[in-house]
Amino acid sequence: MRPPAKPAPAAFRPKDGVQLLALPGLPEIRKGDDLAGAIAGAARKQGLAFEDGDVLVVAQKIVSKAEGCIVALAQVRPSAAARALGKTLRSDPRFVEVVLSETRRIVRESAHVLIVETHHGLVCANAGVDRSNVPGRDVVSLLPRDPDASAKRLAAALRKRTRKRVAVIISDTFGRAWRLGLVNVAIGAAGLAVLRDLRGERDRTGKLLHATILAVADELAAAAGLLMGKAEGVPAVVIRGYAFAAASEPAAKIIRPAREDLFR
Amino acid sequence: MRPPAKPAPAAFRPKDGVQLLALPGLPEIRKGDDLAGAIAGAARKQGLAFEDGDVLVVAQKIVSKAEGCIVALAQVRPSAAARALGKTLRSDPRFVEVVLSETRRIVRESAHVLIVETHHGLVCANAGVDRSNVPGRDVVSLLPRDPDASAKRLAAALRKRTRKRVAVIISDTFGRAWRLGLVNVAIGAAGLAVLRDLRGERDRTGKLLHATILAVADELAAAAGLLMGKAEGVPAVVIRGYAFAAASEPAAKIIRPAREDLFR
Repeated sequence: MRPPAKPAPAAFRPKDGVQLLALPGLPEIRKGDDLAGAIAGAARKQGLAFEDGDVLVVAQKIVSKAEGCIVALAQVRPSAAARALGKTLRSDPRFVEVVLSETRRIVRESAHVLIVETHHGLVCANAGVDRSNVPGRDVVSLLPRDPDASAKRLAAALRKRTRKRVAVIISDTFGRAWRLGLVNVAIGAAGLAVLRDLRGERDRTGKLLHATILAVADELAAAAGLLMGKAEGVPAVVIRGYAFAAASEPAAKIIRPAREDLFR
Repeated sequence: MRPPAKPAPAAFRPKDGVQLLALPGLPEIRKGDDLAGAIAGAARKQGLAFEDGDVLVVAQKIVSKAEGCIVALAQVRPSAAARALGKTLRSDPRFVEVVLSETRRIVRESAHVLIVETHHGLVCANAGVDRSNVPGRDVVSLLPRDPDASAKRLAAALRKRTRKRVAVIISDTFGRAWRLGLVNVAIGAAGLAVLRDLRGERDRTGKLLHATILAVADELAAAAGLLMGKAEGVPAVVIRGYAFAAASEPAAKIIRPAREDLFR
């Protein structure tokens, strides 16, 4: 008897799946640069034409650079509070000063890290102030002032340029309570529903689902994060084939209101 | 002048991207069922042959069912503590009793939810005890007793059956501090490095990266979660084309040690 035939490898059928497509090769972004143009150019180089229903996930860093949310520490005069905290954290007091200026409230401080609530209401380490992937020594990036507005602008600019409706998520890598490691989350969004409320739907056994709201935009950001890794220089990823609800919601909707939060 | 030619839609090039492929059509899983066999069968129905380097993400629920981690509340005698807590939470005291039996420590209790540390060390609502997608009224599922061991067994069984090295992640939907909505995280893993440590690598500007460890397995689980949605009955997703580090690490490695946790 002959051995059973080896099954042929499956061809990709878009109807079955979702694709994550990296957009490497963006130029170094500077203040005032046309981000939509740079992204469309990187897509073209990849032979990728945007389609209606694509989700573009963009790393916060390039949005901040395009918007000039960059601070040279040489320009910063640390306050007494920043100097004291800098000693505790063994951190440059000028860096701490920038973090404090982005902070609404300190949530936790330890010998290693400052977890704060930013003016946006985001809870994260160092208010999202970061040295990596910013050219120059002692230069740091801040989060965009209004990431949802940034996402809206980018979606509109891409629409104008490509004539396609592309949803946009601006992502950043955040730490979590209880779990090690960073994951990408959505800090800005436009063109999609960021939360998917399943309450009222039934599971496969017919039971009503309770308390089931999925943070779809965060799962999209995390998926894109797989291809972004800080070292790779891939600040943009296209997610194709994901059927999202088209209501345009801000990522701010994902922030748990402080009064309902048991951990703030 | 003719209008510029519209660029042809991009064909999928696996080298560029990652695919998320849903495996619907699994039968209802019962205690003792051969999960690897059921998954291989569902893949075959999709015309999908496993490949070396695929990551299979499986919803905790079907692993729990196969392992018999199912409790009928009619069999449960609630303790006085469970009855008291049940009143506060307006929850079935037998349900609360099951939650407490899976709990090492209550992290927070409010009028709406019980956030606990499970015997595994996972911090989540209701210790992962859940009514959805379990057939029968008043029947609940527990988390697998040792999800990393379950992942290992499933990876080994798939290897035997398909002759392919497939990494396995067992996922569950967890809530988060500070953010609304659930996301899928990895509670069990085999065949891949669950954390990716970038410390010592350089960013694209040449700066050394500090404090950058990515929770790769959680990002994979979240990506798969996009196709799982509780209502759809898709308990398994194949992730193809993701270049992970092949060291086999348990998902327990992602749990932040309690002594380093500022929020426990």
